[in-house]
Amino acid sequence: MTEAEFIAALRRLPLHPAARGLNDDTALLDAGPLVVTTDTLVEGVHFLPTDPPQDVAWKLVATNLSDLAAKGAVPEGILLNYPLGDDAWDRTFLEGLADILTAHDTRLIGGDTVTLPPGAPRILTVTAFGSDAAAPARAGAKPGDALYVTGKIGDAGAGLAIALGKSGPAELLAAYRRPQPRLADGRRLARQVHAMMDVSDGLLIDATRMAHASGLAVAIDLAAVPLSDAYRAYSGDRVAAATAGDDYQLLFAAPEDFATDATRIGAFLTGSGLVLHDAGTPVPLPPSLGYEHRA
Amino acid sequence: MTEAEFIAALRRLPLHPAARGLNDDTALLDAGPLVVTTDTLVEGVHFLPTDPPQDVAWKLVATNLSDLAAKGAVPEGILLNYPLGDDAWDRTFLEGLADILTAHDTRLIGGDTVTLPPGAPRILTVTAFGSDAAAPARAGAKPGDALYVTGKIGDAGAGLAIALGKSGPAELLAAYRRPQPRLADGRRLARQVHAMMDVSDGLLIDATRMAHASGLAVAIDLAAVPLSDAYRAYSGDRVAAATAGDDYQLLFAAPEDFATDATRIGAFLTGSGLVLHDAGTPVPLPPSLGYEHRA
Repeated sequence: MTEAEFIAALRRLPLHPAARGLNDDTALLDAGPLVVTTDTLVEGVHFLPTDPPQDVAWKLVATNLSDLAAKGAVPEGILLNYPLGDDAWDRTFLEGLADILTAHDTRLIGGDTVTLPPGAPRILTVTAFGSDAAAPARAGAKPGDALYVTGKIGDAGAGLAIALGKSGPAELLAAYRRPQPRLADGRRLARQVHAMMDVSDGLLIDATRMAHASGLAVAIDLAAVPLSDAYRAYSGDRVAAATAGDDYQLLFAAPEDFATDATRIGAFLTGSGLVLHDAGTPVPLPPSLGYEHRA
Repeated sequence: MTEAEFIAALRRLPLHPAARGLNDDTALLDAGPLVVTTDTLVEGVHFLPTDPPQDVAWKLVATNLSDLAAKGAVPEGILLNYPLGDDAWDRTFLEGLADILTAHDTRLIGGDTVTLPPGAPRILTVTAFGSDAAAPARAGAKPGDALYVTGKIGDAGAGLAIALGKSGPAELLAAYRRPQPRLADGRRLARQVHAMMDVSDGLLIDATRMAHASGLAVAIDLAAVPLSDAYRAYSGDRVAAATAGDDYQLLFAAPEDFATDATRIGAFLTGSGLVLHDAGTPVPLPPSLGYEHRA
């Protein structure tokens, strides 16, 4: 698509009033204090060249909305920095973009389009803005707090293996390609919990980061890590589940007696680092806790 | 540099309080209504692989600050989406980033770092936030308004030719590599002018866009286009100056008797399109008015 065609297509998406109809050089955003987050996905690094473009669009926006969810924010809108490529890819990407914007009542604020040199991998950036956020930090866990996680863990990691050629159910593949940002959970939890973040690099590494930011240690019960029925049938490997990334669940610290439908999987202790056990039996730490060097 | 080293280096830059010390997943920005703009630069498209990395950093931020200048905004801060590459390039890039942030009292709010597949061209994105903006639109020119431009036009176009191997003075090369966003001019002008934008793609194409957005025609006097002494000595070609991009001057519409040290170069008329003359003598339009298809 040409730039003009692409922008015309963007104008048919839900536009934020700040976008001024995509007719100006800047957007004017007046939505009170804002939560701001930005993520860049690189073809061949964060997504596969064979991933369907509509799912790349979904995931690009979903990863950003997941960061807003962890702050309890209402999605205000996004900026898109997009490399125009072949026509079919661009058109299908726009379909996925429309899907996720509509699914999460998020609007386009603006962006930039560029042309890449021939053969260059696609690099896509989305910047997301959220309003009305309680914005709990990573660093707020207190000694004695329990560690909780929403939803199920490990589906996306299995889905990545399936995307790479392993056989497995469509449900797990969908968890990898179309993660669901936990915006409603985030809204409900943000004003009550002590610390919260999303699980993007792996449950163990992300929990360790929360503990580190809070100046504490964390003990996690592998047996408590919530697995889906599909994942149990696929492999049921709890260490793999807890170290795979892309879950986009919410991980939070709250008192032991906190009333929640999230799963309690561990506890914060004075000290530092991570202790792993399986219903009380100590478990050695796996060589990798998640995507530690992921840039 | 590793991601950890790069982020440690970013922490030594002027940080916005919203950045929370770059220790969280999101920034929290509470600066009133915001002007938001984003620009992506692609190696081999928007900058040359041989351009010094510190100048790439400067230009990446400067192009965004120029958009803020055209709205009369005070720079609040930036997000940086950065592909980690070789050590020397990263370190030198950071020096240029420190230069421009310091020069324009702009602070880092956050961003994202990624790793590229081997051989991929660098793609860099900056998103800039400005506050307290009068934010004149492109579309506000009135019939009878004069067209004005700040500074000199054409230096950066000559500088690009010099960067590509032509001989010429360092002053023109610097105009291409280290454009100066007209933030002070923008602050002064924004509350008084009828329409304003920056000149990024070429004086003629950008003036035509302002006229189009305003539902008017524009007549430009080539003889009035302000040239620097260095450009006059280099070539003095007025059509080349008026169709080269990267000037990052401010172009604005205001009444005929508007008191300004900017140069009056034309007038808005009822109708549509562009009329070019040389001190009254009609001049045919050049085949290209600027980077028309620049994405």
